[in-house]
Amino acid sequence: MAALYGGVEGGGTHSHAVLVGADGRVLAETEGPCTNHWGLSLSGGDEEAALTALLAELRRRCPELSHSFCVSSDAKGAMATATDRGGIVLIAGTGSNCQLVNPDGTESSCGGWGHMLGDEGSAYWIAHRAVKAVFDSMDNLEVSPHDVDYVKQAMFQYFQISNRMGLLPHLYRNFQKAEFAGFCRKVAEGAHAGDALCRHVFLQAGEVLARHVLAVLPRVDESLFRGELGLPIVCVGSVWNSWELLREGFVQALVRARGGDSLGAFSHFSLLRLRHSSALGGASLGARHVGHKLPLDYSSNADVFYTHHF
Amino acid sequence: MAALYGGVEGGGTHSHAVLVGADGRVLAETEGPCTNHWGLSLSGGDEEAALTALLAELRRRCPELSHSFCVSSDAKGAMATATDRGGIVLIAGTGSNCQLVNPDGTESSCGGWGHMLGDEGSAYWIAHRAVKAVFDSMDNLEVSPHDVDYVKQAMFQYFQISNRMGLLPHLYRNFQKAEFAGFCRKVAEGAHAGDALCRHVFLQAGEVLARHVLAVLPRVDESLFRGELGLPIVCVGSVWNSWELLREGFVQALVRARGGDSLGAFSHFSLLRLRHSSALGGASLGARHVGHKLPLDYSSNADVFYTHHF
Repeated sequence: MAALYGGVEGGGTHSHAVLVGADGRVLAETEGPCTNHWGLSLSGGDEEAALTALLAELRRRCPELSHSFCVSSDAKGAMATATDRGGIVLIAGTGSNCQLVNPDGTESSCGGWGHMLGDEGSAYWIAHRAVKAVFDSMDNLEVSPHDVDYVKQAMFQYFQISNRMGLLPHLYRNFQKAEFAGFCRKVAEGAHAGDALCRHVFLQAGEVLARHVLAVLPRVDESLFRGELGLPIVCVGSVWNSWELLREGFVQALVRARGGDSLGAFSHFSLLRLRHSSALGGASLGARHVGHKLPLDYSSNADVFYTHHF
Repeated sequence: MAALYGGVEGGGTHSHAVLVGADGRVLAETEGPCTNHWGLSLSGGDEEAALTALLAELRRRCPELSHSFCVSSDAKGAMATATDRGGIVLIAGTGSNCQLVNPDGTESSCGGWGHMLGDEGSAYWIAHRAVKAVFDSMDNLEVSPHDVDYVKQAMFQYFQISNRMGLLPHLYRNFQKAEFAGFCRKVAEGAHAGDALCRHVFLQAGEVLARHVLAVLPRVDESLFRGELGLPIVCVGSVWNSWELLREGFVQALVRARGGDSLGAFSHFSLLRLRHSSALGGASLGARHVGHKLPLDYSSNADVFYTHHF
């Protein structure tokens, strides 16, 4: 029987699964509903216990499924899809997270603590930021830099409410992170239609995402700066679909920091978008786990969509 | 049978109940556990339905309890305890809220939307701010203005964890607002012991609480500025126990705003602390609801603990 390597990418809104042959060829792919981010609400110790329980349950329910299992973070799966030489994965989907993997395997991260402690630059954060601007403006607590009317009306429509009180069940009793984060799409639509507040929020999202990169920069192995692409940043998550709205804030934040010092070797960077689900990288990590190196064609797994030279 | 007026103050950590005679004398007082803030997670329409359900259930379970019931906000109960002439109630307990009541009964408010949308200056906010400074500093996302070491160690101790991952269940799976907000006490202890980060967070809390007052200021009836105390601000909630930590931020924010213009008549303000539970004001509101004005001795119901002349 030929060796088969499976990969699953679990996401906040939907999931992907892939089957790969020993030659690195994708044999089958499929999509499914969201996978619960159980990892988020578990402490360090719990996490290991839950992992053991998860694997035991997998083996019990699907005893024929696989000889071996390997679980890793979404960031590592994305990285393993784009390259085997390391770089930065910057996730901005329902939540956000930044993970550096150096060529020698050393890692460093920034964020990834969930919506109660950050998620800066994520769809949740953008939606929250926009909504908060409406509340603060109506409360006269904060003067919004731009008119809040579009966001207010869009918020009433999206959440099907007629006043601010109506939003509270969506944030408390019936809170669903993905549902709330889905309002980000309306903010993007507003920004595309020229609404200044929506554009401003995306500009800030770009800035804070760049600050995640700056946070891990001191730990980047210098060899990662020297490749053809400069520092490779793999961008994962639907917020990156609005790159043109993020760009100014993102690039300016890096240019400003570059204007300081000590970023000498950091001469340029490239943003990459995966062409395959990070389930592919998951399969590759699983293969490596049992001693096989999948010969993936990385150049066809990711597209460079932006390069900046300082 | 003599007329009796009962009042209940429901709080995030504990509750008070009081029985008052028609002459305004407190006949009995007692304390109980926390009352669930059901109001928070209900929309405008739901709220009325829940109120009806609550009263129906009260009448069903305790048919002999009372001829009439009246439900109002915690802010209104506090106000009715301190004065019948109006003023500002500024709550900074587990959550925060600011409510203006003018002498003619017109109202205006700022905040009170819960921890997902604000609660600025509350114990939750102070605890969150301190914890976030630790996370951001360790992530290198934000340079903390002061060393985070005291807060980090206090956080590990308070939540009985050994790393940051351990905090996640306290913010997600097992989130209890009052438990998380309780960490504010450790921040206050740190501030009293001279920790610069803790002092900084309380300074910011003072500032943002003052900004709640500034938010409702344009709606304050000018007669409220002209009393002996200047603008009366009734301060409710345990965060005010740390007034000396809040003071600089609070006063400076008002002085700065005063430095602008248009606050002409706002020449001085006084901060009052209730000497009785706002359950007393609740009894008074209940009495008014059935056409009786309780002759409360307001001067003995609240103490002025700070007055500032600009």
